[in-house]
This record gives sequence, structure tokens and C-alpha cells, in this order.
Amino acid sequence: MTGTVYLVGSGPGDPELLTVKATRLLEAADVVLHDKLPGPEILSSIPEGKREDVGKRAGGERTPQSETNARLVELAEDGNDVVRLKGGDPFVFGRGGEEMLYLAEHGVDFEVVPGVTSPVAAPAAADIPVTHRDHASSVSFVTGHEDPGKDESAVDWGALADTGGTIVVLMGVGKLPEYTAALRDAGMDPETPVALVEKGTRPGQQVATGTLATIVAARDEAGISPPAITVIGGVAGLWDGVEGEP
Amino acid sequence: MTGTVYLVGSGPGDPELLTVKATRLLEAADVVLHDKLPGPEILSSIPEGKREDVGKRAGGERTPQSETNARLVELAEDGNDVVRLKGGDPFVFGRGGEEMLYLAEHGVDFEVVPGVTSPVAAPAAADIPVTHRDHASSVSFVTGHEDPGKDESAVDWGALADTGGTIVVLMGVGKLPEYTAALRDAGMDPETPVALVEKGTRPGQQVATGTLATIVAARDEAGISPPAITVIGGVAGLWDGVEGEP
Repeated sequence: MTGTVYLVGSGPGDPELLTVKATRLLEAADVVLHDKLPGPEILSSIPEGKREDVGKRAGGERTPQSETNARLVELAEDGNDVVRLKGGDPFVFGRGGEEMLYLAEHGVDFEVVPGVTSPVAAPAAADIPVTHRDHASSVSFVTGHEDPGKDESAVDWGALADTGGTIVVLMGVGKLPEYTAALRDAGMDPETPVALVEKGTRPGQQVATGTLATIVAARDEAGISPPAITVIGGVAGLWDGVEGEP
Repeated sequence: MTGTVYLVGSGPGDPELLTVKATRLLEAADVVLHDKLPGPEILSSIPEGKREDVGKRAGGERTPQSETNARLVELAEDGNDVVRLKGGDPFVFGRGGEEMLYLAEHGVDFEVVPGVTSPVAAPAAADIPVTHRDHASSVSFVTGHEDPGKDESAVDWGALADTGGTIVVLMGVGKLPEYTAALRDAGMDPETPVALVEKGTRPGQQVATGTLATIVAARDEAGISPPAITVIGGVAGLWDGVEGEP
């Protein structure tokens, strides 16, 4: 009998931020297909015998998405119940949508299990709310690390600036100079607060703060490394002037 | 000794989408302060003796935020460990930021525990990914139900349309005619797919689909009631033409 594939979000890294459902499915699964993003604390809690790594290969290249898709179908057709474990949420820049469509096209049963998403949780771990009535009526998530196959950036930084809401950039440590410049060029106030959160909710969490004009220097001084989350907007400066500041 | 206040997200409604940490804190708490948003399935699992409802009052009015803030401080100062339970995530239109700042200003220890956020999870429950490489390089969350104290909408629908990404509207059933018109006026294609998800992840989940031009009629025909999540963008039409469509 064909098995079921569960596309499961593991949350931002803290094992306690797994959902009850994710925990149950990980225990029941025959095979868990994962890359490195769920983080070592979560991966090491899964018995080695049922883990299968589809992350980076020896040469440093990623496993092509097509191979992962094909492996999911193969495992399910062999009768396995499979957890495809994703960092954060499977549908927020996690390519879960592509895997879901592939499974549907191949007649494999699937279920999506949402997780705590990093662009909300990593700022929260630094006591930064992504929305606040006095600071942000909207919040936008965007990736700083786009499909290398695309010729030019599909991200309209000017439109994001014009929303007036919080902008949260995933995988945006390397391109920080480019997009902070793009936002300033689009007319965003250089004094807009910015925060970088590395390893949010995990051991070794590190935060750097500054403004649209100063955050690149703050990144370098703090030694923030990928992956990290960038928060741009008034909410990143919420603590300025608050007594009892953490 | 003063207690600690935990600002905890309960997720989109399915009790299994609580995090492991939320479950542990709910068990350990002396008092759980909540409104109706976590949903009946989750609220009924908390012993009645330690629940305190700060939601709507007899007259239909909401408890003012200032009263909730003061109650949190009072309970903690009386030595209670308090869970302030929020629907979804405390920092995504949950007013958790306001409560956190108030606690800090009053010298009360707090911790923020992120939850699975409804604007990601409700679409996922309808097999709609909020991002997809071929359809959306960004996703924006916005509330359709703004602070009634504001004179005019702080939401720039035109800028949101210009991002080219997915737009997810929370609490947007009632104002659906207004903002779908605003998006069309801003130049968004009337054929843009739109989906409404009521009670996502919960018993009685209901979905209506259409386009920016037809969704209001689809809402009325399906009888979608608040609260529901609106998804606007190519991702809402992802299943069109897919074999094995669910």
C-alpha cells in the first residue's frame, strides 16, 4: 500500500517550538527526509536509522529539487509513511508548494503540517513584534536569496517600502548592502530601525541593531553569519526609550 | 515573589498545532488569560479553575486593552505564573507587542512564545502555499479590521498590489468588497485568484475561491463568516489545471 507524505514545518530551531502534531508524526514516520535547516538540536532527536539527508552534497551543491521530489514518491510507493521535515514552515519560502504539487500529480497522498515560521519567531526571540498598532499595519516577508536561475531580482523593494509596513528579509545577510541601498534609493528614511537576528530561538542566538544607514557596519562588527533574519521598520526600534529595556 | 507572564501563541485552532512549549506552559500556569480566538477545542482543554476570559463582555464590547494590561501585572505581582494565550501568534496582529512593553515598563518578567500563525496555516489547510517560486517572491499580511480609532485606512493597497507578491488579509470578510475594489483600482488584474478560508485547521473548515472580480459573490454563496483569511495572488489558483487536484 502506498504511504502518505507529510510536509512538516519544524519551526525556527528550538525543539520545544515543534508542534504537538510534528512530534507525533516524527515518532510515527518510517522515514524522515530533511536538510540542515531544522537545526542540529531537532535532527539529533530523530533516530539515525530513519533519517535521510537531502541537503548539501559532498561537493557543496544542493540536491536538485527534482531528485527530492522523485525520492518522496519512491518512498511512499514503497509503502513508507514519510515526514518531509522543513525548517520553519513548509510554505514560507520552503518549496513545500512545489513538492505538494508533484505529489498530487503522481497520485501520492500528502498532508501539510504548518510550523512556527522563522520571520515571525526569530524577531520575537529578540522581543521584536513584527506588527504593532502604532508602528506597522502590515508585514511583508521576502527572501534575500533568490532563485539563481532568475536574471534579475523579482523583488520590488520600492513597493515594499511604500507599504509602510514591517519588511522581514529571510536569508538576507549577504545581500544586506544591496537591499538596504535599494530601500534608501526608494525613499525610505535612512534612520529607519533595522535588526538582524542570527540563530533566533537557538543556542548562540545573536542580535545586531542599527538603522538602514548603519546596519551593514553593525552586522560586520557583531559578526552576524547566515542564516539570519532582517527586520526593517519602526518595530525594530520599539525599545528605544522604554524603561525596563531588556 | 513576582511571577512571570508568558505571551503564548496557540496557533490557528487545531489543538495539535499548539507547540510543545505552549502545552508545557499551559499545564504549569497558575492562571491563563484568554479571549475567544484560540478556539473552543483549545480553551476547553484548560481546567476551568485557572481560565480567565478577557474577551467580549456581556454588552458585546471588548475588554479595553488597558484593563488586560493591568490585570497581567496584578496577577504576576500576586506571585502567579501567567499564560496570556493568543490566537495564532502573539506578534502577528495579536497586540502582544503592546502587552510586552507594558510588562517591561512595570518591571514584570515576561517571555514571548511564538505560535503557528493563521495567515500561513489557514491557507495551508486549504493546500495553498503563501509563497511559490513561480508565483510569489514575497508575501504580505495585513488586517482588514483596523483600529476603529483611526480616521482613515493606514493600509496602502496600491503599494501592496505593486509588490507583486501574495497578499493575505486577516479579519477581512466584512470589508472584502472595499479592498478587492481598492486593489482593482490600483491596477491589479481582476482575474487574480482569491481564496477565502474560514475556520482553517478547525472542524467546520470552509473554503471559497474566485478572482478579484468574483470573490464577493463566492463569499456570499458559500456563506463564509468571520473570522476567515483571504489569500490574494497566483498561489490561490495553483491547483487550476493540476491533475490529481484535491
